[in-house]
Amino acid sequence: MKIGILGGLTPQATIEYYKLIINKYQTEIDSSAFPEMVIESVDVSKVHHLTTGKKDQQLIQYLSESMNDLMQAGADVILIASNTPHLFYEEITRNVSVPVISILDATSDEVIKSNKNRIGLLGTIPTMQSNLYRKPFINTEIQIFVPEITEQDFLQEKIFKQFSRGIFIKEDIMAVENMIQQLNSKYKINGLILGCTELPIFLKQDDWKDIELFDTTSIHVDSLIRFLKKKP
Amino acid sequence: MKIGILGGLTPQATIEYYKLIINKYQTEIDSSAFPEMVIESVDVSKVHHLTTGKKDQQLIQYLSESMNDLMQAGADVILIASNTPHLFYEEITRNVSVPVISILDATSDEVIKSNKNRIGLLGTIPTMQSNLYRKPFINTEIQIFVPEITEQDFLQEKIFKQFSRGIFIKEDIMAVENMIQQLNSKYKINGLILGCTELPIFLKQDDWKDIELFDTTSIHVDSLIRFLKKKP
Repeated sequence: MKIGILGGLTPQATIEYYKLIINKYQTEIDSSAFPEMVIESVDVSKVHHLTTGKKDQQLIQYLSESMNDLMQAGADVILIASNTPHLFYEEITRNVSVPVISILDATSDEVIKSNKNRIGLLGTIPTMQSNLYRKPFINTEIQIFVPEITEQDFLQEKIFKQFSRGIFIKEDIMAVENMIQQLNSKYKINGLILGCTELPIFLKQDDWKDIELFDTTSIHVDSLIRFLKKKP
Repeated sequence: MKIGILGGLTPQATIEYYKLIINKYQTEIDSSAFPEMVIESVDVSKVHHLTTGKKDQQLIQYLSESMNDLMQAGADVILIASNTPHLFYEEITRNVSVPVISILDATSDEVIKSNKNRIGLLGTIPTMQSNLYRKPFINTEIQIFVPEITEQDFLQEKIFKQFSRGIFIKEDIMAVENMIQQLNSKYKINGLILGCTELPIFLKQDDWKDIELFDTTSIHVDSLIRFLKKKP
């Protein structure tokens, strides 16, 4: 089984996926082997440009070509290593003939299993403002809460200009932590979706006693490992 | 231009290549973009097994398939992110229709330009014992010196069992540094090829006043950047 990763979204997160997949593969499947992978690393600046310019069709085209390249390279199962592109999950995967494990499905399953029902959500603006993480919880008791607009703008900028380049300064980390405190005092959240694959790099469960953190990267990789275990 | 990387040889080195390519691309070509890449990550345990078992044909077959997958995924230029597989450079690249930048050509060019002529070589056993880094210097004044057999065995084991997994303990680093000191007192080397893409992670020029270190990863990536700059 060759694992395909649609990555570069951002490179920093792709490296986390790569290390985590190898680590969990060796822990849970075969300690003496390294999983075969193909990683397609796209230009996240172009993705950002198309996203903010609302050029959805061009973005879908760009990401669909990358999915196709992964198939051409022999990927047997694919992960899109970022939350935001899952907005176009259906369009991007329409012509893909191998399973594409959705970060949304994996994460929402974990949230439902956890019995937490007041869930904060951090991520890019499209992730926070769209129904990306609301749709999976329709017909459940689970409510999703996001920061104020000005805080969303701040987070978006930090994700693209700093975190995505591996720059994590103390001031920014404290601002994000403050955002979580605000969500908690306003909405009494008992769970928090780290809906951007950069956030788990500096937000750790140990620092949050009463809020369960849902690390989407780790949940996504766990879902891949379960998939691989089921295969012969 | 889409950059293809034959990686996983080891994953730790692949991450170094990935970060370095992005960094140098943004510094020297386009600060606002991320280069498009496709990374094929093979099972280095399998490669190690085939190498030590002298199963050359199977190894060539395995790596050739990966090169083919990179082409299928649209790579316009390819780097093999490791020194040792360059032993089979000709066989592996025979059916590849895009340029494959050789780490040997890039490094030997740098050594010749440096005017250093007594060059130590560290790497895996196949790298140190073969003519990999001797062939480029035939008909030059440049001589290549390698550690004693027992030290070669030690280095080989450390590369595969520790460094390749990102484990760099002080004791091992000191042993490798001692190896360099030995080479220097025996052969009066004035240059040293870090002929394994894990070594530059912990061996730094600042610590070696009279010996020029040739960081093959960095030299390889520089060669890629020059190639990209020449292209329209």
